[in-house]
Amino acid sequence: MQHAASAAELAAVVDKIRHAGLTEHVSCGTERTIVGAVGDERRLTPDLFERMPGVERAIHVVKPYRIVSRESHPDNTVVKVRGIPIGGETIQVIAGPCSVETQAQMHASAAAVSAAGCRLMRGGAFKPRTSPYAFQGLGVTGLAYLQAAARPLQLPIVTELMDVRMLDTFLEYDVDVIQIGARNMQNFDLLKEVGRVNKPVILKRGLSATLSEWLMAAEYIAAGGNHNIIFCERGIRTFETAYRNVLDVTAIPVLKRETHLPVLVDPSHAGGKAWLVPALSLAAIAAGADGLLVETHPTPSEAWCDADQALTPEELLALMASVRAVAEAIGRRV
Amino acid sequence: MQHAASAAELAAVVDKIRHAGLTEHVSCGTERTIVGAVGDERRLTPDLFERMPGVERAIHVVKPYRIVSRESHPDNTVVKVRGIPIGGETIQVIAGPCSVETQAQMHASAAAVSAAGCRLMRGGAFKPRTSPYAFQGLGVTGLAYLQAAARPLQLPIVTELMDVRMLDTFLEYDVDVIQIGARNMQNFDLLKEVGRVNKPVILKRGLSATLSEWLMAAEYIAAGGNHNIIFCERGIRTFETAYRNVLDVTAIPVLKRETHLPVLVDPSHAGGKAWLVPALSLAAIAAGADGLLVETHPTPSEAWCDADQALTPEELLALMASVRAVAEAIGRRV
Amino acid sequence: MQHAASAAELAAVVDKIRHAGLTEHVSCGTERTIVGAVGDERRLTPDLFERMPGVERAIHVVKPYRIVSRESHPDNTVVKVRGIPIGGETIQVIAGPCSVETQAQMHASAAAVSAAGCRLMRGGAFKPRTSPYAFQGLGVTGLAYLQAAARPLQLPIVTELMDVRMLDTFLEYDVDVIQIGARNMQNFDLLKEVGRVNKPVILKRGLSATLSEWLMAAEYIAAGGNHNIIFCERGIRTFETAYRNVLDVTAIPVLKRETHLPVLVDPSHAGGKAWLVPALSLAAIAAGADGLLVETHPTPSEAWCDADQALTPEELLALMASVRAVAEAIGRRV
Amino acid sequence: MQHAASAAELAAVVDKIRHAGLTEHVSCGTERTIVGAVGDERRLTPDLFERMPGVERAIHVVKPYRIVSRESHPDNTVVKVRGIPIGGETIQVIAGPCSVETQAQMHASAAAVSAAGCRLMRGGAFKPRTSPYAFQGLGVTGLAYLQAAARPLQLPIVTELMDVRMLDTFLEYDVDVIQIGARNMQNFDLLKEVGRVNKPVILKRGLSATLSEWLMAAEYIAAGGNHNIIFCERGIRTFETAYRNVLDVTAIPVLKRETHLPVLVDPSHAGGKAWLVPALSLAAIAAGADGLLVETHPTPSEAWCDADQALTPEELLALMASVRAVAEAIGRRV
Repeated sequence: MQHAASAAELAAVVDKIRHAGLTEHVSCGTERTIVGAVGDERRLTPDLFERMPGVERAIHVVKPYRIVSRESHPDNTVVKVRGIPIGGETIQVIAGPCSVETQAQMHASAAAVSAAGCRLMRGGAFKPRTSPYAFQGLGVTGLAYLQAAARPLQLPIVTELMDVRMLDTFLEYDVDVIQIGARNMQNFDLLKEVGRVNKPVILKRGLSATLSEWLMAAEYIAAGGNHNIIFCERGIRTFETAYRNVLDVTAIPVLKRETHLPVLVDPSHAGGKAWLVPALSLAAIAAGADGLLVETHPTPSEAWCDADQALTPEELLALMASVRAVAEAIGRRV
Repeated sequence: MQHAASAAELAAVVDKIRHAGLTEHVSCGTERTIVGAVGDERRLTPDLFERMPGVERAIHVVKPYRIVSRESHPDNTVVKVRGIPIGGETIQVIAGPCSVETQAQMHASAAAVSAAGCRLMRGGAFKPRTSPYAFQGLGVTGLAYLQAAARPLQLPIVTELMDVRMLDTFLEYDVDVIQIGARNMQNFDLLKEVGRVNKPVILKRGLSATLSEWLMAAEYIAAGGNHNIIFCERGIRTFETAYRNVLDVTAIPVLKRETHLPVLVDPSHAGGKAWLVPALSLAAIAAGADGLLVETHPTPSEAWCDADQALTPEELLALMASVRAVAEAIGRRV
Repeated sequence: MQHAASAAELAAVVDKIRHAGLTEHVSCGTERTIVGAVGDERRLTPDLFERMPGVERAIHVVKPYRIVSRESHPDNTVVKVRGIPIGGETIQVIAGPCSVETQAQMHASAAAVSAAGCRLMRGGAFKPRTSPYAFQGLGVTGLAYLQAAARPLQLPIVTELMDVRMLDTFLEYDVDVIQIGARNMQNFDLLKEVGRVNKPVILKRGLSATLSEWLMAAEYIAAGGNHNIIFCERGIRTFETAYRNVLDVTAIPVLKRETHLPVLVDPSHAGGKAWLVPALSLAAIAAGADGLLVETHPTPSEAWCDADQALTPEELLALMASVRAVAEAIGRRV
Repeated sequence: MQHAASAAELAAVVDKIRHAGLTEHVSCGTERTIVGAVGDERRLTPDLFERMPGVERAIHVVKPYRIVSRESHPDNTVVKVRGIPIGGETIQVIAGPCSVETQAQMHASAAAVSAAGCRLMRGGAFKPRTSPYAFQGLGVTGLAYLQAAARPLQLPIVTELMDVRMLDTFLEYDVDVIQIGARNMQNFDLLKEVGRVNKPVILKRGLSATLSEWLMAAEYIAAGGNHNIIFCERGIRTFETAYRNVLDVTAIPVLKRETHLPVLVDPSHAGGKAWLVPALSLAAIAAGADGLLVETHPTPSEAWCDADQALTPEELLALMASVRAVAEAIGRRV
C-alpha cells in the first residue's frame, strides 16, 4: 500500500483477495503496509490491484509457470528424437544450411553434417524474411529435399514451422523436430497447435523476450500436453551494433536452474558471422548448454541467404573437435 | 574492402556484382577501396558479400521498402474507414476496452466512447496473453458483442486478428479495421493474408522492432495489394523498469518522413498505467501523431485484463478535451 | 524464502534482521514464506540476504532516495536562477551553441537567444568528446567568451563541468547553472563536489540510467546540502539506430510524480537532428516538462561540433512560437 | 546524397571536402549519388555533412581509433605487471574482495587468493555506490590494508581509481594496476590523467558502451602515451531483469580482432550472483578471454557489499580447477 493509504483502501484490497477465494495476510511496517494473498495467486494478476486507490505496487511471489518449472520436476528431462537424447550428458550439434536450395546442395550438406559427427540435421523450407522481396524458402518441396537427403544417413530433421495451416504437412513429411522461430515465440495460436501434437519442439527465444516470457511460451506448449520442449537461445537485441545480436550466455545457467528442459544455443544467428561461430559455440558449451544449432553450407559464398554465417564442411569438422575438447573439460561428451 | 584486400579479392566482388546484372563502381581511397553496385541493389543483400575474402563491410545505400516509402508516394495517404479519415488534418481517437467481457459492458463502453466524441471503437475478442492460464478472450462471441454495441452508434470497429484461420470470420462479422498486434508484427503469413483483403490494417510496432523492420512488415501487406495500412507506435522495450514500455515519440516524426501512411499511438499499452495516459497522449499529438488508440472501461477496477491502464468514461472525456486543445495549438483538430 | 527453505534458514534471516536493529514480520503462505524487515530498511541491502541459504529473493519496499523524493516534500520546488524561476508555471527555454567557438559567434548566439525570448543561455567550454582527436572545447577562454556575450543581455549562463578540479574556476567565472553531463551522471566525486556549493545544478540523465539511479545521483548532490537540482532528460540508448537516442517522454510524468524538483528536456541531443527538434520539444512540453535545453548556432553548417542538431536563429524563433502555443494549450506559459 | 539532391548541393559537399584538405570521389548510381572523401577522413565528422541540404547520410569508412587498433599493431600486446604477463598464452585470474573492510579480512583474502593459484589481487578502497548512504569504501586506509596483505605474498594489486585528485596517492601506495570502473569509462579527464602515467590500466566497459566507444576510451589513454591498457568486459545492460547484466561474450572475439590489447572478463559483476560465476567464467575463457577479475571473500555472507556475488575460498579453488581444464581444452594454460 502507499505510505498514505487509508483503512478503507486497505479493506478494499482485502475484500478483493477474499472474493477470489484466497486469504489475506496484512503486515504493518513503519513506513509501508504489505498485504499478502495466501492461496493460489496465479488466479490473480498484479494489474487487478494496481488500479485500486491506495495501492503502490502489486507483485507475484510465486512463479507463473508450472509444468516447465524445475520446482515441479526437479530432474533433468531428456528429450529423445528417434532415440537420440537431447538434454543428457551428451552434447548434440544440429547442423545444416540456412535454407533448402536444391537437392544436390542438400545431399552435400547431409554428407558434411554426418561426416562431422553431428546426429541431427537442420534446413529451412519456410523462411521468415524481413523483406517480402527476399527468397521465402522452397516450401513443401524443401521438406521433400531435406528428408531425401537426411533419411539415408539416419539424420532426424529439424525445420521451422511458421504457419498453423502447415502443421499437417509437417506431420505428413515426418518432420522429427518442429522449430518455432524467434519471431513466433509469442505466436500463441501456433504454440497451442504444436502443444497438441506428439513431436519435439525447439522453441527459440524471441529477440527481446525475457526469460519469464520464454518460459511462459513453453508453458503454452506444455499446457496442451506436449512436454517435449527444447529451448534455444539465439542472441538478444541490445544497443550494440558491432555484431548482429548478443549471445546471452547468462541465460543458459539461469534457464537450467528454472526449468528441467534441455537448452540449446544457435551461435550462427547470434553472431551473424561464420568467424564468430567457434568462440560462441565453445562459450555456450562451457556455460552448460546441451547442444548447438549451427548453420553450414557446402559453399557458403553461394548460399541463397545468410551466406556470411554458414560454416564450410571443413570449419564444421574443426568446430566439432573443439566442442569435443571443451565438453570433455567440463565432464560431458559429444 | 579491407585495408589489406588483394586485387583478386576485389575482382571477385566485381564479378559477383556483374553476375547479378548490376554494374560496379570502384573508388580507391588512401586507406580503403569502396565498391558500389550500380542498378537495382534490392536484389542483393549485404550477407552475400560479407563472407567473401577481403570484404570488410557491405551496406545497402537505397532503402529496402518501396510501396510504403514517401519517396515513392510524396503526399500523405488518408485511410478512410466508413468515411472517417485517418491521416488527414483531423486527429482520430479510437477507444474501447482491452477485452470484450459482456454485452452490457460493451454497450456501456460504446456509449462512453461515443459520448466522448471518439469516432471509432476498439475491443479485444482474441487476446494475446503471456500466460496460457490467463483469460484468452471471448473469441467469436466477442466479435458479436462488439458489433452489437458499436453499430447502433455508427462506430466502426477495430479488433485484433491473431490467427490466419480466423480471417474469414473477421470478414463475416464485418470488422472495419484489422489490428495486427505487436507480437505478430513479423508473423509474415498473417501479414501476407491481410495483404490480400481490402480492409484497413492497423500494424502495431513490435516491442523491439526497428523502424526499418516495421516498414518492411508494412511492405509485406502492401506487396499483397492492400495499401490501407496504419502504423501504431505502442512503446518499445528498453532497460528501464519504472514503467512498462518507453513510448518512442521520436519514431513519429521519423516515420512521417519515411512513409506516406498514417501513424497512431497507443498510450495505454505504452505506459501501462491509466494515470500516464494523458501525458503520453498529448506528447504523441504534439509530436505529430494522426490519432490515438486508447483503452477505456465502464469500471476499470473490475476489468478482466489490464485493469490498471483503462480510463474511466470521465477520464476519457477529460482526455478528449486536452487532446483537442493541443491539436488546435499545432493547427489540427479533433 | 525458497519453497524448500528450512526452519534454520528462516531463523538465520530473522537473526540478521534483528542484528541490524529492525524487527521481522514472518508471513507463511501456501507456497512461500515471506519475511518483512520492519524499521529503517535503508540500512539493509538485498544482496546481504540473497547469498543466505534458503533465500529466494530480497527486495526494498521503501524507496532508497529521501531528500529528492516527493514523499518527503509534496510541493513542487521552483529553482531560481538570478530571479528566473525554473519549475513553476512558466516554461523556460535555455538555448545556445553546442560549443563556444569564438567571441563573435557567442555574441551572435546571445543576440539570437535573447531575440527569440529565451531567458538563459547555454554554451560548452569543456566538451566531452568520444574521440581524443576531436575538438575538446576552448576551456577557460570559452567561459570568458560565454560570460562576455551573455551578461550584457542579462542571460544567466549554463555550462558543463567535467572535472572536479575546475569547480573553483566555474565559481570565479560566476557560472550561474552548473551542468553535469550524461556521461558523468554517476561520477560520484563530481556529484559530491557540486553538492557542497550553492549553485543550481542541471543533472542530465545517463544514456542508460534508470530513473532510480538518476534520482539517487541527485540524492548525492542533495545529501551534500545543495537542493537546487534540475533534472534533464536527453534521450536514452535503445536498440533503435534510425535516430541517435530515444527521447523518453514517459520519464517526465513519472519523474514529476517521484520528485518535487524541476524537469527539463534536451531535444537536440535526444534526436541528434535539427529537423527533429520541434516535434520533440512540443512532445516534451505536452508531457509536462518544465523547460527545454536547445542547441542553436548562428550558422549551423559551420559549427565545430554537432552541426546537424543546431537550430538557426530563425528556427529557434519559430520553435518558441510553437512552444508557446502548446504551453498555453495545457495551461502554462513561456 | 538524397534521391532528389541538386547539382548545387552536390557541389557544396565537394567544396567542403576540398576545404578540409581531402579529395572527393563522386560515384553516380541509378538511384543515389555517393561522394567519398579521399584522405585522412578522421579530420571530418559525419555531422559536419548531415546538416547540408541534399545530404541523406554521412558515414566514416575508416575506423576512428588508431593506436589501440590491430590494424596499426597486428601482434598481440602482452602487458606485464611485475613480470606477470597478461594477454599471452597464460590465463590470469585476478581475485579479491569487492571492498577492503579490515586488515584481518584482507590477510585472509590474500591467503585464499594465493592458495587458489591466482597471481594478482583486487580489492576496492574507493567504491562507486549508487546510494550516497551506502558504504563508500575505506579510502586511503583501504589502499594500505590491501598492500599490507598482498605484498608479502607477491601479489601485485589492482584497485579502482575514481577521482583524478587521488592519482598521486595511488602512485605513492604503489598500486600496480589502476582500474577504471564502468561508470567512469567516459570520464575523459580521468582517462587523460591515467594516460600520462606509466602504470597498467584495466578499463572496464561502460554498462551500455558500444565497442567503438570503448575502443575510443582506450584511445584517450593511449593518446597520452600509456599503452599498457587491458580491457575488461563486465556485462551490459539490456531489457532482461532475471539477472543483473548480460555478459557479452561476443564482445571478446570481436575485441580481440579489433585490438591487440588483452581482454579480461569480470563474471562477478556481470551475473551478480556467486552461483553464476563458474558458468560465466568458463564461457569467457572458452570465448577467448585472457583472464578473469573475480570477487572472493573469506565469509561472503558477512561482506559489506555485493555479498551475493563473492565466492568463498573453496569456491575460488574449485573455479580455478575448472578454468584450468577449459583453458587446456583450447590450448592455453592457467
